[in-house]
Amino acid sequence: MEFIVNPTSNSQQYQEQYATSIQKTASILEDLKKRVAEPQAFLEWIYSPNYLSEKELEAINQQAERLSQYEKIIVIGIGGSYIGAKAFIDVAQQHHFKQEERIIFAGHHLDESYLNDLLDYLDDKDFALIVISKSGGTLEPALAFRLLKDKIREKYSESAFKERIVTITDAQKGELRAFTEQHQCNSFVVPDNIGGRFSVLSPVGLLPMAVAGIDIMEFPKHLKQLQQKYLKAEEQNPVLQYAVWRNLLYNNQFAIELLVFSNPKLQALAEWWKQLFGESEGKEGKGIFPASLQLSTDLHSLGQYVQEGKKHLFETFVRIKNNANSLHIQAKSDKEHIGDFLANKTLHYINSCAEQGTIKAHSEKGEVPVFEINIEELNPKSLMELIYFFELSCAVSASLLGVNPFNQPGVEAYKQNIYDLLQS
Amino acid sequence: MEFIVNPTSNSQQYQEQYATSIQKTASILEDLKKRVAEPQAFLEWIYSPNYLSEKELEAINQQAERLSQYEKIIVIGIGGSYIGAKAFIDVAQQHHFKQEERIIFAGHHLDESYLNDLLDYLDDKDFALIVISKSGGTLEPALAFRLLKDKIREKYSESAFKERIVTITDAQKGELRAFTEQHQCNSFVVPDNIGGRFSVLSPVGLLPMAVAGIDIMEFPKHLKQLQQKYLKAEEQNPVLQYAVWRNLLYNNQFAIELLVFSNPKLQALAEWWKQLFGESEGKEGKGIFPASLQLSTDLHSLGQYVQEGKKHLFETFVRIKNNANSLHIQAKSDKEHIGDFLANKTLHYINSCAEQGTIKAHSEKGEVPVFEINIEELNPKSLMELIYFFELSCAVSASLLGVNPFNQPGVEAYKQNIYDLLQS
Repeated sequence: MEFIVNPTSNSQQYQEQYATSIQKTASILEDLKKRVAEPQAFLEWIYSPNYLSEKELEAINQQAERLSQYEKIIVIGIGGSYIGAKAFIDVAQQHHFKQEERIIFAGHHLDESYLNDLLDYLDDKDFALIVISKSGGTLEPALAFRLLKDKIREKYSESAFKERIVTITDAQKGELRAFTEQHQCNSFVVPDNIGGRFSVLSPVGLLPMAVAGIDIMEFPKHLKQLQQKYLKAEEQNPVLQYAVWRNLLYNNQFAIELLVFSNPKLQALAEWWKQLFGESEGKEGKGIFPASLQLSTDLHSLGQYVQEGKKHLFETFVRIKNNANSLHIQAKSDKEHIGDFLANKTLHYINSCAEQGTIKAHSEKGEVPVFEINIEELNPKSLMELIYFFELSCAVSASLLGVNPFNQPGVEAYKQNIYDLLQS
Repeated sequence: MEFIVNPTSNSQQYQEQYATSIQKTASILEDLKKRVAEPQAFLEWIYSPNYLSEKELEAINQQAERLSQYEKIIVIGIGGSYIGAKAFIDVAQQHHFKQEERIIFAGHHLDESYLNDLLDYLDDKDFALIVISKSGGTLEPALAFRLLKDKIREKYSESAFKERIVTITDAQKGELRAFTEQHQCNSFVVPDNIGGRFSVLSPVGLLPMAVAGIDIMEFPKHLKQLQQKYLKAEEQNPVLQYAVWRNLLYNNQFAIELLVFSNPKLQALAEWWKQLFGESEGKEGKGIFPASLQLSTDLHSLGQYVQEGKKHLFETFVRIKNNANSLHIQAKSDKEHIGDFLANKTLHYINSCAEQGTIKAHSEKGEVPVFEINIEELNPKSLMELIYFFELSCAVSASLLGVNPFNQPGVEAYKQNIYDLLQS
């Protein structure tokens, strides 16, 4: 991975602030590393002997193997129990028209038409559930679970719960743990010392990934490499550079960040990234608003705004440098509709020129600060690198902003109102 | 449709500004109506005798009928030639897992893996193309068209172009018009006096809709009703109210608007809305940044930010008031996982409480200004109302902001850079 800063005409003014902040982030990172083992520090994802243990990965793989007997797997979860796994699964699959979904997500909203369609659809499908909820009490997954569990009871019998329901929940407490014990379901534990939005490499994300055929046994090796690369408390560490730049720009009126990408399969990664930064930093009246832009679709919608609108946003491009299988445009094709200059070029090269042309247009002509995060190829390994990089940088960035990266006190407000309304 | 303003504690301060602005918007609307017939005013979508003519609708329907012989229809287009039709088609279809796609979009980006997958997928499919591009020269659709046209030539023969390619393009000019004449393809015209983002109710959007089985013959009647309802230059017109509120908030540091909705089928409408407002208002260093939030999924990601983050955003909820077919939660189901208070309630009622609870949490506790646009049911008719309402309000709002709603000068910058890079 490489991290590139595309300077705008006013980036000179930040040099002094940058030098001060990068020193601070080095101390922040040292401090985070020291506190990994503290209970309630929510830092276990940085490194921990229990995290990604081979024994647990094997158990997850065996469970995925067992679940392969079912035609459809419904994964019930919301927020951190949903979007991280989807980010990996989307990248590992072919595009939507080419691959029938075996994994269908539910419990990530309350839309009735979706649940109606799903219940109806499952009438003639042989299906199993993976239910992910630490407490078991969150309304959206609990409601979907109630309906889908009743569907299993109705189609098969209550004794099928044991075979067809796998839970991922708290080790001891909560309604889903009680259900698990009562029906002797297969189960994995949501770790105590990792927050939801940092939990994708725990069973929460790993079981759905394994079901989708992703080779999770490779992950511990990758994680070790990432730790060696990104835990260095030194100025050259892109984790620190990204955190410093975000805060510099925020302090200079740039209060929106767009994650920009070309491959539509990265939409779920963008949604994961929005949760990571939005929940970690959006508190105490502060924080950068996280949004996304899909190339080149959104250049024909948000593009005008980025180019010439209000100057309160900056962009972070995630670019993929190589694609060995990219199609060549044939020279002999007729030329009525597109210039001769495309002949003998690959689609990857054309797309890469589009990305480069966009960066130039936005950063030079549009005076929009643009960062690039470039990866070699798009696969689960590079996705893991992006995720580790963003998680670490987010923890540092939020600390630099002066907020706690690991709580989300504002998520409760709407929940309480719903319960009040439903019980009134 | 009803338009509701949920006040925050500081909404009193806007009263005077509101009174001044609403007068201005009444004049703006009168002016827009007067200029409908002017060439280059780009206002034909407001009303015009040629717009949605019965003769054209019949021709479109006949063409859709003819295309029904093909297994898959690939619709090639970008921006306004893509997202409006998708908004209607998504609403008319069932959820993704339940309905195999007959219509597949292409040419809306340059991602190589998508085009590779699509070409491969079509090997054993009987398919036809609808190609939508005013000039024929825009890179993304032109590239997709080049590859898909070659696929037709290779699988069938060049003589199949006549049957399998329908174009929607300029009446006279451009490469796609030349191709159409050369191969005697069936064709429709992109109107001259309507901009791309306002063109969904022209053949650009209507042919894909008709192919998806939407009853477009009802549209002229609906449009007439909408004109009677929304073209009144008076304070009670919600078109003017929405435009005034957006500008008031923008002038008071609220520079981000979130379109909020529950049904995942409305995602494409949100994308259409982003283009409409982003391209119409994002110029001369001004404009509200348009983003979206899907309930309740994003309450577990962006929710924290909206509730407690930086106070620079406001929300516009699109709510659906009724759903006659909504599922009842059975009372006799076991109660391990969710409170008894859900029993005997419909999913629609639960979702409606969630929306209401969110509005209360954001507007009261979070001090976020919240608007509601409530429609009775979700169907093509109500979608048409939303679209007409937003288009008209956008034209008024941009005029109030002091920018031209109907140009997009900033979209050219990246295009020129791409051509330069590709030709270097």
